[in-house]
Amino acid sequence: MTTDKLYKQRLYPLDEWRIIEEKFDVESNYLDETIFSLGNGYIGMRGNFEEGYYGPEGTSLEGTYLNGFYESHPIKYGEEAYGYAKKSQTMLNVTNSKIIKLYIDGEEFNMFTGNILSYNRTLDMKEGVLTRKIVWETSARKRVQIVIKRVVSLENKHLAAINYEVTPLNFNGEITIISALDGEVKNQVSNGDPRVGSALNEQVLKILSKHQEKSFGAITQKTTNTEFVLVCAMENDLQTESNYRLEDSPSQMVRAKYIIDAKEGERIVLKKYITYYTSKDYPTYELLSRAKETLLQAKKNGFEKILISQREFLEDFWKQACIEIKGDKALQQGIRYNQYQLLQSVGRDGKTNIAAKGLTGEGYEGHYFWDTEIYILPFFLYTYPEISRKLLEYRYRILDKARQRAREMAHEKGALYPWRTIDGEECSAYYPAGTAQYHINADIIYALKKYVEVTGDVEFLLDFGAEILFETARLWADLGSYIPKKNNKFCIDCVTGPDEYTAIVNNNCYTNYMAKMHLEYAYDIAKLLKEKYKEKYIELAKKICLQEEEVNEWKRAANNMYLPYDEELKIHPQDDSFLEKPIWDFENTPSEKYPLLLHYHPLVIYRHQVCKQADVLMALFLLGDKFTLEEKKRDFDYYEPITTHDSSLSSCIFSIIASEIGYYEKAYNYFMQTARIDLDNYHNNSQHGIHTACMAGTWMCVVNGFAGMRVYDGNLRFNPYLPEKWDSYKFRIRFKECQIEVKVDSAGVNYKLIDGNSLEFYHGNQKVNLKKGQEICLDIQK
Amino acid sequence: MTTDKLYKQRLYPLDEWRIIEEKFDVESNYLDETIFSLGNGYIGMRGNFEEGYYGPEGTSLEGTYLNGFYESHPIKYGEEAYGYAKKSQTMLNVTNSKIIKLYIDGEEFNMFTGNILSYNRTLDMKEGVLTRKIVWETSARKRVQIVIKRVVSLENKHLAAINYEVTPLNFNGEITIISALDGEVKNQVSNGDPRVGSALNEQVLKILSKHQEKSFGAITQKTTNTEFVLVCAMENDLQTESNYRLEDSPSQMVRAKYIIDAKEGERIVLKKYITYYTSKDYPTYELLSRAKETLLQAKKNGFEKILISQREFLEDFWKQACIEIKGDKALQQGIRYNQYQLLQSVGRDGKTNIAAKGLTGEGYEGHYFWDTEIYILPFFLYTYPEISRKLLEYRYRILDKARQRAREMAHEKGALYPWRTIDGEECSAYYPAGTAQYHINADIIYALKKYVEVTGDVEFLLDFGAEILFETARLWADLGSYIPKKNNKFCIDCVTGPDEYTAIVNNNCYTNYMAKMHLEYAYDIAKLLKEKYKEKYIELAKKICLQEEEVNEWKRAANNMYLPYDEELKIHPQDDSFLEKPIWDFENTPSEKYPLLLHYHPLVIYRHQVCKQADVLMALFLLGDKFTLEEKKRDFDYYEPITTHDSSLSSCIFSIIASEIGYYEKAYNYFMQTARIDLDNYHNNSQHGIHTACMAGTWMCVVNGFAGMRVYDGNLRFNPYLPEKWDSYKFRIRFKECQIEVKVDSAGVNYKLIDGNSLEFYHGNQKVNLKKGQEICLDIQK
Repeated sequence: MTTDKLYKQRLYPLDEWRIIEEKFDVESNYLDETIFSLGNGYIGMRGNFEEGYYGPEGTSLEGTYLNGFYESHPIKYGEEAYGYAKKSQTMLNVTNSKIIKLYIDGEEFNMFTGNILSYNRTLDMKEGVLTRKIVWETSARKRVQIVIKRVVSLENKHLAAINYEVTPLNFNGEITIISALDGEVKNQVSNGDPRVGSALNEQVLKILSKHQEKSFGAITQKTTNTEFVLVCAMENDLQTESNYRLEDSPSQMVRAKYIIDAKEGERIVLKKYITYYTSKDYPTYELLSRAKETLLQAKKNGFEKILISQREFLEDFWKQACIEIKGDKALQQGIRYNQYQLLQSVGRDGKTNIAAKGLTGEGYEGHYFWDTEIYILPFFLYTYPEISRKLLEYRYRILDKARQRAREMAHEKGALYPWRTIDGEECSAYYPAGTAQYHINADIIYALKKYVEVTGDVEFLLDFGAEILFETARLWADLGSYIPKKNNKFCIDCVTGPDEYTAIVNNNCYTNYMAKMHLEYAYDIAKLLKEKYKEKYIELAKKICLQEEEVNEWKRAANNMYLPYDEELKIHPQDDSFLEKPIWDFENTPSEKYPLLLHYHPLVIYRHQVCKQADVLMALFLLGDKFTLEEKKRDFDYYEPITTHDSSLSSCIFSIIASEIGYYEKAYNYFMQTARIDLDNYHNNSQHGIHTACMAGTWMCVVNGFAGMRVYDGNLRFNPYLPEKWDSYKFRIRFKECQIEVKVDSAGVNYKLIDGNSLEFYHGNQKVNLKKGQEICLDIQK
Repeated sequence: MTTDKLYKQRLYPLDEWRIIEEKFDVESNYLDETIFSLGNGYIGMRGNFEEGYYGPEGTSLEGTYLNGFYESHPIKYGEEAYGYAKKSQTMLNVTNSKIIKLYIDGEEFNMFTGNILSYNRTLDMKEGVLTRKIVWETSARKRVQIVIKRVVSLENKHLAAINYEVTPLNFNGEITIISALDGEVKNQVSNGDPRVGSALNEQVLKILSKHQEKSFGAITQKTTNTEFVLVCAMENDLQTESNYRLEDSPSQMVRAKYIIDAKEGERIVLKKYITYYTSKDYPTYELLSRAKETLLQAKKNGFEKILISQREFLEDFWKQACIEIKGDKALQQGIRYNQYQLLQSVGRDGKTNIAAKGLTGEGYEGHYFWDTEIYILPFFLYTYPEISRKLLEYRYRILDKARQRAREMAHEKGALYPWRTIDGEECSAYYPAGTAQYHINADIIYALKKYVEVTGDVEFLLDFGAEILFETARLWADLGSYIPKKNNKFCIDCVTGPDEYTAIVNNNCYTNYMAKMHLEYAYDIAKLLKEKYKEKYIELAKKICLQEEEVNEWKRAANNMYLPYDEELKIHPQDDSFLEKPIWDFENTPSEKYPLLLHYHPLVIYRHQVCKQADVLMALFLLGDKFTLEEKKRDFDYYEPITTHDSSLSSCIFSIIASEIGYYEKAYNYFMQTARIDLDNYHNNSQHGIHTACMAGTWMCVVNGFAGMRVYDGNLRFNPYLPEKWDSYKFRIRFKECQIEVKVDSAGVNYKLIDGNSLEFYHGNQKVNLKKGQEICLDIQK
């Protein structure tokens, strides 16, 4: 059964704060499981049913994930070559802790037996709770109401909980509840689509031991190759009298079974507390006791306590992060859902990052890409800067591995970050659209630079940032060269830019511009350190053996960077040879041949002028002050007709540039392709997991696009307009010590300083200075 | 134990017609096994010992191969993409039929026990026989003389034989001889070096049945995935009285055991006849009876008969093919060995071709490459043209698969030959240096064109050649396009040329020149057919739906072909971007870092001006009349310092061009790197098999290089000179109905028409016409 084309109509009713499912539908179940995923940046649980799923094959993926917890296998190549990524890293589907089975007089409850008299599932984004309410009737017409609340604690990364309530509606009788953990878990097997699943095809987590005593149960498992140990444990708290039975469980499960004399109208409540600990965070011998401690504490505090902490956490989150739109409920819901999922997906411990599909599915193997720095980090930077710092800490954490990778790639100095990874090693098995994307180094530095500019966190720069910055800058110096045939300009050969429909080219426009920015920033920061933090500089220079000539060479390379420009077309060519290829025959490409990568050999695609995603336009956005508005317009006009947006990372960038150059209708249409990407399953693959980068792109479309926010040379700028269909929109931005609220409606733009003493910024070309609590209303300039 | 650096000194004494080993050396055993390989274009047997080998691991490869007999597995990719080669094809190591074990009073003979009192192994290239003579002494001082002759019949592709003689020198006693077939065979497992072995790591040939009756034994086996059936059978003819014992054999063997009362001085002779038949040639149910019939006939005729037929076959071969050099024994031996191995390796049945390592090892999985058409076929074309026809017939045989491959690569019409294959399917698991080498199509057509010009075999052109020609020409028409940025010239983007140290480039010089030749030839032949063979043309055009406009478009594309030239350097750039890359830092690359492909990631190599092999120079040679001598000189001067010759296909081309432009010392030195490539283990990897293309390159160095032979516009040309170190050299060339002998010595060049009524050719710029039997001596012009 193919689920790829099933979702045509709007699936979830419009509601500003909630995602609601009013009817169980086997055809959308796979997608629903993604949509109703819960997570806290560490634990991720797909929206699977506690009682299990008995629908047809291919309509469900039972999934629980821990950010950064993976198995590794040697990568198989048809033909080996030196320096290829050696081992995979695949985020594992871990011990299933969601299981609560229910029996009414021996009849097992599930969605495929008896009668579902009513059904409702709601993800509440203010409460941080997933609630399912069902009235179910057995074949013997015994009716129960079931109410299940599930939370994954945003406060405590090791904690999740389920509040399970059953009320007999028309009978007295025996009710049995079994709460379990299941260690028999496997990852999904890829079907050849590189965007889905992995090559793991057997159970990787082997049981080391099981613990079962009354309401407590734990399974200790170990990965086969990475040898990580994982403890998953539960504590069950049944708030009704019962016959507890410790029963033999299937070999890979632990179970607590409760048999209850149920009375009509009397609610039975089981509170199940769940925890995960792994040897990636703590010594193996501590895992079980830590798990016990966490559960003990949780049980003592009770389920309500978790609900309260969720609410508080989210209250603050929405205060900082919320975008309010008046005039379009669907969008409001979409944007909010995207923000919510970003929060659920992002690793906040400095050891983990944010996977392409968050913690909601197995696509792209749970890897971290440039998506983090270029798409997702900005959202957190301007709303929850402490999270963006954690994301950068992760990069510092893997710096040594990036150094090692640089050596493998024949660079004697410096660091080269992996294109895709979990723990720092390059995991891309296709280097033309992997390792060749050297721009990852500059992407990380771009994010670092913005982080420092926006937060003023010089301490981070001194302690971690500068080291990353200098080591990665070295790579460009070694990679590029002064080419006589190019007027001795500094050229960068054989790299791949963001657009993966063109590979291994010389002087990719995006890469060269970003490398220039990178080298300049490295030079500037070296200068700053020498002048202001001399000791720090000497210490760091000694640590990484940095020579003065190197620093000067960065400046020289930046000054002489070859920046592609076509005098004839007056556009920026994507690379040296891009304009010398034929344009893809779009007219004769039927819609079912998209995405092209699934229907054409890479050589066929590479041979043509056709883009998967924004490439030159990405530079126009990120380094917007380096280009004139006219250039942006011409580039947009050139690249738009040849871009397929086969990558979900594309539309938001097109929307932002369209906003900037006054193509408002296009801006809105591209924005619409991001705002409900998963809720409306726009790419027909959300069943495999959410699209985190695109979700963050929605935020960028509004803030950078409609509101025209930029930070150039450390200056905050806005240039807002109001999309035709909206009444108003509103959001908050943190900048240095301040927080500013921007509200745009037909009357104009209202700026209000929420936090901080004083903030200077630009409204269009007009300089504005706001004092604490002050508010100002200005005309829309566009 | 690494065998890679073992062979420093000359291993085999100089002898014009023989390769001799005077002493068994475990350290060179692995190489010796390659050097003493026997073959007949179908069966290939490495020079393994009949009694088995008991030396240290890594010093031997027991190998028997059948040309074109392979197993197939799904190719595993770390990351899948559309259109990748799906299945491997690996030439199999088949049933070992060489086994003859010898026991003297129960003590087993092998090279590692007892005492070897004398040892000599000789490959006689006039006789086509491998002979090993040993005097061996048991631990009890019993001495035997052992003389073993092995032949693989050049006349009958299904036949091999061993003549095994033992003579007790100082005792009477019991001698046991076991002759066996062993079905327990596996291919070598690759160590990650793409040039060695395959991914097969288990026994692929499963036993279907065994037959054993007296002197006859047979094993029927089947491949797992390709489901090919193979029968290997033996007939043993012991010419002494003995106790024959039919014994239980190990499960995968059949054995005939003879116990003999041996007398001092009385020779015991066992004649073992061996045959192989597979379901690739005959229906499965016929295989066993055909095997029996072949053995019966062989036994009836006797071993001597095979020796006679070998001698006769080779007498003719050397008459046609021999290059005689006076003044350098080592070279004479090397050249002769190379020619001999080419004959042993080449498939002559129209269904098989010639593998990169012949039938002597498992490197490159027994695949056929462009090596055939560009390197090897010319040798046969001018000496044994019927073999070159068979090689072209093979290409016709796989034309349908090439059509299918073209569709996979999004070409609606035409055919794209696989870069590497056995049975026609693309097997390259690394497309940048595989499928991207579209020039394979033109290489085949180049060989076809020469074949027709040199043999005048228009019938082949009409029946097979034209169809190949037109279908492949279509590919260029579809692949290339008229590019505005290139003055609307016809450009070919995203291909890889012969040089595998540069990949996926636009307008590879070699490719564009060859495509132009291809398209012109297709147009010309279409014209010829329309004018002279109208019916044939109509029939063919109908069969392949060929439109008149297509043919005209070929001409238009050829006329407008973009031919790269750099006005500043006045050289032919290898491709559009080649000259815009930095030159490889040869100065700081230590010798142990070669070949570069084993020490640098492809991206590092691709990023630089560095060539693995001749690329532009290949065009200068093949299409020599399109370039001036000055251009050739400038190109040579430019590319020579940046070429590593990490491919064994490189040196001969450099030698030929060096000869042409008067760089005689260089010409000789490059030639020296080809002439004894395997005998001197020049690339340190001959243990894995011979280098067939390079071996043919030796012939080209002499004929095309020193003697300056070319065929331009159907005209035969020579322009010989005499390498300083030689007294003279001599060879014969077939051209149309004629055969001419060319002898060059210090007195001049002697041309003699051996065969045919009249031949016109050029000596330098001088037109010469020879009549039958006529001889002429002309001055060397260079």
